[in-house]
Amino acid sequence: MTNGIRRRLRLGMVGGGAGSFIGGVHRIAARLDDQYELVAGALSSDPARALQSAAELHIAPDRAYTAFEAMAAAEAARPDGIDVVAIVTPNGSHAAICMAFLRAGIAVICDKPLTTSLQSGLEIAAIVQDRRLPFILTHNYSGYPMIREARARVAAGELGAIRVVQVEYPQEWLAEAAEAGANKQAAWRTDPARSGPAGSVGDIGTHAHHLAGFVTGLELESVSADLSSFVPGRRLDDDARMLLRYRGGARGMLWCSQVAIGHDNGLRLRVYGERGALQWVQAEPDTLHVTPLGQPTQRLRRGMPGLGREAAAATRIPAGHPEGYLEAFAQIYREAAHLLHAHLAAERMPMEAALLPGMKDGLQGMAFIEAVLQSHAQDGRWTALQPVPG
Amino acid sequence: MTNGIRRRLRLGMVGGGAGSFIGGVHRIAARLDDQYELVAGALSSDPARALQSAAELHIAPDRAYTAFEAMAAAEAARPDGIDVVAIVTPNGSHAAICMAFLRAGIAVICDKPLTTSLQSGLEIAAIVQDRRLPFILTHNYSGYPMIREARARVAAGELGAIRVVQVEYPQEWLAEAAEAGANKQAAWRTDPARSGPAGSVGDIGTHAHHLAGFVTGLELESVSADLSSFVPGRRLDDDARMLLRYRGGARGMLWCSQVAIGHDNGLRLRVYGERGALQWVQAEPDTLHVTPLGQPTQRLRRGMPGLGREAAAATRIPAGHPEGYLEAFAQIYREAAHLLHAHLAAERMPMEAALLPGMKDGLQGMAFIEAVLQSHAQDGRWTALQPVPG
Amino acid sequence: MTNGIRRRLRLGMVGGGAGSFIGGVHRIAARLDDQYELVAGALSSDPARALQSAAELHIAPDRAYTAFEAMAAAEAARPDGIDVVAIVTPNGSHAAICMAFLRAGIAVICDKPLTTSLQSGLEIAAIVQDRRLPFILTHNYSGYPMIREARARVAAGELGAIRVVQVEYPQEWLAEAAEAGANKQAAWRTDPARSGPAGSVGDIGTHAHHLAGFVTGLELESVSADLSSFVPGRRLDDDARMLLRYRGGARGMLWCSQVAIGHDNGLRLRVYGERGALQWVQAEPDTLHVTPLGQPTQRLRRGMPGLGREAAAATRIPAGHPEGYLEAFAQIYREAAHLLHAHLAAERMPMEAALLPGMKDGLQGMAFIEAVLQSHAQDGRWTALQPVPG
Amino acid sequence: MTNGIRRRLRLGMVGGGAGSFIGGVHRIAARLDDQYELVAGALSSDPARALQSAAELHIAPDRAYTAFEAMAAAEAARPDGIDVVAIVTPNGSHAAICMAFLRAGIAVICDKPLTTSLQSGLEIAAIVQDRRLPFILTHNYSGYPMIREARARVAAGELGAIRVVQVEYPQEWLAEAAEAGANKQAAWRTDPARSGPAGSVGDIGTHAHHLAGFVTGLELESVSADLSSFVPGRRLDDDARMLLRYRGGARGMLWCSQVAIGHDNGLRLRVYGERGALQWVQAEPDTLHVTPLGQPTQRLRRGMPGLGREAAAATRIPAGHPEGYLEAFAQIYREAAHLLHAHLAAERMPMEAALLPGMKDGLQGMAFIEAVLQSHAQDGRWTALQPVPG
Repeated sequence: MTNGIRRRLRLGMVGGGAGSFIGGVHRIAARLDDQYELVAGALSSDPARALQSAAELHIAPDRAYTAFEAMAAAEAARPDGIDVVAIVTPNGSHAAICMAFLRAGIAVICDKPLTTSLQSGLEIAAIVQDRRLPFILTHNYSGYPMIREARARVAAGELGAIRVVQVEYPQEWLAEAAEAGANKQAAWRTDPARSGPAGSVGDIGTHAHHLAGFVTGLELESVSADLSSFVPGRRLDDDARMLLRYRGGARGMLWCSQVAIGHDNGLRLRVYGERGALQWVQAEPDTLHVTPLGQPTQRLRRGMPGLGREAAAATRIPAGHPEGYLEAFAQIYREAAHLLHAHLAAERMPMEAALLPGMKDGLQGMAFIEAVLQSHAQDGRWTALQPVPG
Repeated sequence: MTNGIRRRLRLGMVGGGAGSFIGGVHRIAARLDDQYELVAGALSSDPARALQSAAELHIAPDRAYTAFEAMAAAEAARPDGIDVVAIVTPNGSHAAICMAFLRAGIAVICDKPLTTSLQSGLEIAAIVQDRRLPFILTHNYSGYPMIREARARVAAGELGAIRVVQVEYPQEWLAEAAEAGANKQAAWRTDPARSGPAGSVGDIGTHAHHLAGFVTGLELESVSADLSSFVPGRRLDDDARMLLRYRGGARGMLWCSQVAIGHDNGLRLRVYGERGALQWVQAEPDTLHVTPLGQPTQRLRRGMPGLGREAAAATRIPAGHPEGYLEAFAQIYREAAHLLHAHLAAERMPMEAALLPGMKDGLQGMAFIEAVLQSHAQDGRWTALQPVPG
Repeated sequence: MTNGIRRRLRLGMVGGGAGSFIGGVHRIAARLDDQYELVAGALSSDPARALQSAAELHIAPDRAYTAFEAMAAAEAARPDGIDVVAIVTPNGSHAAICMAFLRAGIAVICDKPLTTSLQSGLEIAAIVQDRRLPFILTHNYSGYPMIREARARVAAGELGAIRVVQVEYPQEWLAEAAEAGANKQAAWRTDPARSGPAGSVGDIGTHAHHLAGFVTGLELESVSADLSSFVPGRRLDDDARMLLRYRGGARGMLWCSQVAIGHDNGLRLRVYGERGALQWVQAEPDTLHVTPLGQPTQRLRRGMPGLGREAAAATRIPAGHPEGYLEAFAQIYREAAHLLHAHLAAERMPMEAALLPGMKDGLQGMAFIEAVLQSHAQDGRWTALQPVPG
Repeated sequence: MTNGIRRRLRLGMVGGGAGSFIGGVHRIAARLDDQYELVAGALSSDPARALQSAAELHIAPDRAYTAFEAMAAAEAARPDGIDVVAIVTPNGSHAAICMAFLRAGIAVICDKPLTTSLQSGLEIAAIVQDRRLPFILTHNYSGYPMIREARARVAAGELGAIRVVQVEYPQEWLAEAAEAGANKQAAWRTDPARSGPAGSVGDIGTHAHHLAGFVTGLELESVSADLSSFVPGRRLDDDARMLLRYRGGARGMLWCSQVAIGHDNGLRLRVYGERGALQWVQAEPDTLHVTPLGQPTQRLRRGMPGLGREAAAATRIPAGHPEGYLEAFAQIYREAAHLLHAHLAAERMPMEAALLPGMKDGLQGMAFIEAVLQSHAQDGRWTALQPVPG
């Protein structure tokens, strides 16, 4: 950093080669605010694909790796080694890759869910704690400006004590057995070996769980869950319905589904308090509806006057020019950059990074998954989430 | 009847005097298609109000009663006595009034829920069965044309086997302790003595339960329920969240709330099947969204070409001129008129009345309430609904 | 009237027999609030249809007429003659029928547009003025509660001086040559002999013009119009586009179309002032969106707290139970009843009737049509509306 | 290019320093698909700001210019000089800057409108023609995937012959005299010296004009316009209303406004043909509503099956994860990259660039502005657009 101008961070990536969806998203997100340059990668477990993908991404040949272990070692050894690695592989390999890089002293940006069991999550957490390394989990929906506005308003007491949380994440894409064909995304997401023991619950239920907690500031205490695998032959849940109890008395419902025809990615959150309510829908993410008790619903729009600094800080362009998923994802990377620069300079976590999802969110996600599976196994019995450190 | 032109039916009413909400609705509904004339009433338990209300409604003084028992007796004795009585009192008095008129041989149109326990419901049912009298329960939302269209499409298999039902009925109006003031509607609806043991579940949850069953043709097998009384001092539930299991394998969720700020009467139904899905929202009742698997969502509108005869039969004016709650309610009265004329002529139930909610719906509603309350009392244990005759 | 309870008004009807759309609407509107009884009619120019339709409507045989002239004479001579006649025939016959009843001393409720030329409108107006009889024109959209709320807010200055008015009324139903088939509505509406010289402009453009003036209180000064008859062979305009200039400086645009695929009856009004704006759409008539300058848009709903007495006076059921077209139409009849009772009692026009559309609105509609046609004939030249008395 | 992998293009920028809105947009757009690197800039007419902005953007000091003329000369002389310059200054300086770079042999990406008069536009066009250089005009709304889908469907005849085009672009931001304060955007956009003779018409009316032409493939023949400057003291139009006549018989309306309270950037296009209609709204850009004649409206969503290759080519992430303004803008840059690489390789224009807005669009925009101003000056007389080459 000179004259207050920070250099671009050196980013590595594991996974995300040709055929990946989320790898490209991470790269755009990293690029959007020009605070990273992608300089190294082990982009595929298939060596040829790894190297070809690296070349297409302008990664220098000597930093195009065919195995993450080698990459962690080599990058840790370079004077211009990566500042952070983005891990964008299927869930089942997150733990091993996280540990390799963390042990090499390299900070991590990991896609969600953290891993496939609370136990392995705790093992990763122990290393993070030990090495005091930045660890970011890309619960990207928390990066939407109007989600930030929602959180700020709840935190300021505008809704009063929360009574009811309604959150849902319905999708259509697995309404048929897409995994039987060539759909790579469908294949690993319905395969317990790569996805872990939860299907829709792990893939999108964790997003819904995180988003509700992020906005309300409430901690989920227990769940009563009913899971289905509607598509014949499917080995993981493709639809899950839950009742929620939060600490402090709030109640709620959560629905996630991969067989909900008519929804592409219908993430929606509604929060009802004693003095007001709010609603946000991903399909129109720049809008937040807020209703004060006994008054008309207000349509708040990203970028308009009267919003708080949290929303403003996550906004790039004027109101009415729609921002979307990539910008929200980029917000995670933007704030991760603040955190990483502070880490490099041995400074405290900057305010801008205070909302970043990280290890605790990851562990809570694993506790959520395990409680849901356990409740379902016990015919919907109310099941408490395991407490997590952090 | 002469020349195929039917006379207007003679209608009596119990309840519905000044200050009532639903009484006026029943009267407009009866008037809309000009098949009834209101000729008698015991409109209030307060004699002065009963007589004044009757005069305002142009009821002849000799048919303005101050007690329903007297009315039942007198009307049964008149050669021009009423053909049917509409019962629009609080739930707690439905049973006694129903029985008085049924025993006097007079057909009944009763507001929902049927009564306050399955047991008393069965007693009414026994008389109806014994006397073979028409009995209509005003689950009025089933009268909407696009609800009829939805039902027809599900019945025709357009959605394939149903997987998930999502139904909700949120309201704001009891978010504070309105019953503490002069709000007559709030007072009786939160009073166990007048409303029965269920609050929101009885008042609006039964509507949601009925609507979901009406459209899908599915029978609810068991529920897992979590109830709340969020407003301090409230004696009945004002918010209820449930997981649903239908016979045949469909699953679902039901939410009803009287504390959901921002919703005036947010009844909404979504049904997801193997081959398609549909959504209907009361706020825009002339619209039905239907999504075939893998295809765009279609916006069907009441009155447009391509809809079935069920919707057409419930339609009065061209597409785009919005119809609403009163017209849907009137549909129940219109079809009740068909049934009553057939009864008077000792004919079989006409096809037009085949969709009319009646005694079985009322008993199912009571079984639903009782299963919900029992599940809640057992911390959400899955509880089967009692089977009902009919 | 006894004890403050008013008798039902005796209503006659000309037109509205089998196959009519608007006749049935008027009858339901008259019935909804139970302030009228239909006792006489000349329901069709076809004698057999007239008598059959009368019988179906429970009109006594001696008051089922086959010609409006005879009806006017006979009813005027009866001690129990009609208090008011509803004229629901095609535009081309309005003038003759109006004059027959007015000359017989009978008040008139006339469907819009008033007639087929400003000149004949002025002739009707002269008789109304001479006989001092109530005359109501059913610009029914002005009866919607949220339109009343909109008007009240503009009148109270909430929007500041109006700058721009955007009003449109698109329909799809004549996108093809429906008049070539058996569609009776299409046939007369596209026939200059029955509809007058304007097509879409007369049928729906006048509604849009009236609604904009009703809500804003502004008087249209001049128009620049471009008309089309898109469907080959059509003799009247089926799409019209206009620029508007209002007295006082407001500007606007008006679009009416009968060939706009995708719109059933897409009436929409938007008004922009110096300090705020509002939007209303018929498809969801219980909602009014209001935006104060620099603030979020508010979603006002019929029946909620905070609305004015004008909206409340036009409301029958609680918020969230949708009201629609028939209720708005009934509001015209309800207020006409106030006016007619006052007239019968030789009292001044009651406050409740102050918003009723009448003769002046009818004449302004004719001036609008004539200015539009003249502007179009002169290639869009700005053309002033003729001033009208009243 | 090696192994089919293209190098990043070297991008320069004129304008876009601190305080600019559109400069940052261009940079993100260029970065999103990683096909450009920003290596040079004359980012402000204020030298200190120019250099500071360049440093913040990681531009090397020797390529941080304080004047565009010097930049054009120096970059043209470098072996690693820029491949293309992005011009993001106020309209009034476009012509001089375009000419400087074009004369230096450098391709141009210019923000819209092209310049401030048709005459100066033709001068730029002459140089482009003479030098045979790529010239891209950032009519960015044409980059939205669902706009591409709309265009493809119209081109395929799905709507039949077009009858009516309705396009509007309302904004609220200049409803008060924002130019009187420190709002830099407002200051130049309301200043004839910097913005040219048109206000809202030039700034957003040209976008609406372009979008309608892009989607329909129709050429605007003549306009009848009425312009207003509603805010006291404003020197340029802030609201314009127009009737449109397209070659071939289609008709339309266009409204642009900077004083339309409640709209942030309410761009909306509706197209009505003989056999179908479509609607697109920028607030939810991933959705396109299409209505076939007599059938339900369909809600098409970016990324779903059944869309054409044009939409697919402009799509980055799966359906339901919203894309927005930046992605659409980036699409222009992505296709410009195809064109620039082809130019560098002396190849023909690649198919991917066929939809790129360029010089002809710019000239048509200037002809549009001039016809609008002239029509307004002649009280709305229908005024033909000047024909333009290309």
